[in-house]
Amino acid sequence: MPTISILTDFGLRDGYVGVMKGVIWKICPDAQIADITHNIPPQNIHQGAIALLRTTRYFPKGTVHIAVVDPGVGTHRNPLAAEVDGHYYIGPDNGLFSLVFADAEARGITCHFFILDKPEYWLPDVSRVFHGRDIFAPAAAHLAAGVPLEKMGTPFTDPARLANPEPRRLGNEWLGEVVTIDNFGNIATNIGSKHLQGRDNYIVKIAGQTIQGLIHTFEDRPAGELAAMIGTDEDLIVAVVKGNAAEKFNIKPGDLVEVQSPAGDPA
Amino acid sequence: MPTISILTDFGLRDGYVGVMKGVIWKICPDAQIADITHNIPPQNIHQGAIALLRTTRYFPKGTVHIAVVDPGVGTHRNPLAAEVDGHYYIGPDNGLFSLVFADAEARGITCHFFILDKPEYWLPDVSRVFHGRDIFAPAAAHLAAGVPLEKMGTPFTDPARLANPEPRRLGNEWLGEVVTIDNFGNIATNIGSKHLQGRDNYIVKIAGQTIQGLIHTFEDRPAGELAAMIGTDEDLIVAVVKGNAAEKFNIKPGDLVEVQSPAGDPA
Amino acid sequence: MPTISILTDFGLRDGYVGVMKGVIWKICPDAQIADITHNIPPQNIHQGAIALLRTTRYFPKGTVHIAVVDPGVGTHRNPLAAEVDGHYYIGPDNGLFSLVFADAEARGITCHFFILDKPEYWLPDVSRVFHGRDIFAPAAAHLAAGVPLEKMGTPFTDPARLANPEPRRLGNEWLGEVVTIDNFGNIATNIGSKHLQGRDNYIVKIAGQTIQGLIHTFEDRPAGELAAMIGTDEDLIVAVVKGNAAEKFNIKPGDLVEVQSPAGDPA
Repeated sequence: MPTISILTDFGLRDGYVGVMKGVIWKICPDAQIADITHNIPPQNIHQGAIALLRTTRYFPKGTVHIAVVDPGVGTHRNPLAAEVDGHYYIGPDNGLFSLVFADAEARGITCHFFILDKPEYWLPDVSRVFHGRDIFAPAAAHLAAGVPLEKMGTPFTDPARLANPEPRRLGNEWLGEVVTIDNFGNIATNIGSKHLQGRDNYIVKIAGQTIQGLIHTFEDRPAGELAAMIGTDEDLIVAVVKGNAAEKFNIKPGDLVEVQSPAGDPA
Repeated sequence: MPTISILTDFGLRDGYVGVMKGVIWKICPDAQIADITHNIPPQNIHQGAIALLRTTRYFPKGTVHIAVVDPGVGTHRNPLAAEVDGHYYIGPDNGLFSLVFADAEARGITCHFFILDKPEYWLPDVSRVFHGRDIFAPAAAHLAAGVPLEKMGTPFTDPARLANPEPRRLGNEWLGEVVTIDNFGNIATNIGSKHLQGRDNYIVKIAGQTIQGLIHTFEDRPAGELAAMIGTDEDLIVAVVKGNAAEKFNIKPGDLVEVQSPAGDPA
Repeated sequence: MPTISILTDFGLRDGYVGVMKGVIWKICPDAQIADITHNIPPQNIHQGAIALLRTTRYFPKGTVHIAVVDPGVGTHRNPLAAEVDGHYYIGPDNGLFSLVFADAEARGITCHFFILDKPEYWLPDVSRVFHGRDIFAPAAAHLAAGVPLEKMGTPFTDPARLANPEPRRLGNEWLGEVVTIDNFGNIATNIGSKHLQGRDNYIVKIAGQTIQGLIHTFEDRPAGELAAMIGTDEDLIVAVVKGNAAEKFNIKPGDLVEVQSPAGDPA
């Protein structure tokens, strides 16, 4: 059964996502469609790119992932399709997929990129403001229905890339930043297990708070206490046990996070 | 594969929509179901009607569209079904579908209306407060499973109709109003390309702001600037480039919009 | 077609639910999946338990209901599966399903409980913070694909149970409380038709307001008036006709509700 996922910054109020599903089912009537999220902050390509990186690999190979966070809709940016390790990606060429590409390339996987330049696979009338409906949904549906990317577009090699901020090393410290805050107020950072050395005696500083040591499960600290651990994406996360860390300490994406190794130790 | 869409003012918090899907799958196990939106402002039939008009035509013919914005649930208003150009509509007869009907009739399409008055196609127990679950979902599922409307209801000819405010002409001006505001703060008006003459030198006034001329894509103005263009539904829209016009200028549905043609020209 | 429902407190912003659908479709590619709600207040097991009780029975028998409201994720609480009257439930053993169990048992139905202790039906790597993805979604998908619960877990008999506050009797009064507030601001209480005697001349007191008598439909009172009636789940509900009772009177879950029978009558 063809499988399609959709991620946008459209919200759920206006019916834009429902329209895309209608367009898909006109072309590929048996597609199953999952929403990943439609609550990417409006026009925030970087948050969309992080969400795609974290989620799409859990889908079956062959899934067509549509993503639309597209402040440049109707301008010169190209419609993009890509094949990455058996997954397909369709959306604007503005960096939205570039963290997925970089992650795959770091694992030795070759990504294949296409400019979608064959209007016969789009809706007949293409508006200047809603390419999700007029270009990306129909192209994804044709792909899910079996049309090869080679027929729908032209290969190219240099899609737009986002700079993804890496933490910096300073003496025995890593200086990183808050990347995302989730529904629970849990904070994910750009410092990962790859930067640390599998130990748990680090000191984490964030929002004027100091956390002594990493824990392994939320049970290791009393409710209400700020704690740090390695999260589900192998990144350092900071949370209030059974609480909301972001609200309690007014933490936002981009805020500084410091991780110190104990005196004398290399971090 | 039978396809059903659902639009309501139920929100996504209470599980009401999930219950409707359960009811549908009990009767029509292979129906695919798309949410259009469940965030119509509570009991706002007009906003629901506009959303249906803009979205349902993008679905395949044969789709059964359930819509429930139903402040009169449990009172004398009838349950309605309609067939319009190969699409089916099911919900309360309170005007919710009337913009879809009017649009079709304006294109010369005959709509067929039915009062759903055969309780054998409803749940056995019908509450006074949740006809979405007890009447509309089961009726839609039976229809999607192949029961003809003629068996489920009685033809009638005069469903409830909403007045849809049209813009007024005053000298060389059109006086219209804000109809909807979307997730991006973009503003749609009831002035459409049919009222204008395909030119781009109109002057648009809204919320004390004056916009000189219509643009063609968001790239034609710098970020942060208020701009006007013809949108995806052939209506005049007003937006802040890469920003939120409704928030920035505190614009709400119903606010006045004026479009002037340049001095001496007919608008 | 295998049918799965999902209820969580994950919200819709972070893509957590989308990831679960991807995991399910890798194992059971033709599963149809309905969201019940993902807006249970974070870590509020009781609100999740009420939502499951009210919604899951409307799904077809054979449905696998995944629910994750799991403040103890990664700690000693067990992953649970249950079979109840042909429905399947999968999630943490923390009381989340216990109102479903109690309701079935009160109707003479025997529930069958299993600890999910066979990691071969989970994802290969199980994180300490996201068992929805790593344990519950894959287990539910294997179950939907035909693996019997007996292979996936070990029977046990004493799942965690929530205390569900019952109303108290005091003279000719019932003292109950507000249980839930829905998207319309309608208020559901823990006083039900079973506590009353099918009459409509009760006096309801809530938030300093006194309501004389129960109505049968919202048409029985003018718009804006506070009214009480027996709702769709056979519980006493309080609503403002065409308005939002919870906002207007600042009513919250846990608030006191009194129901008096008229002078001299037994309630």
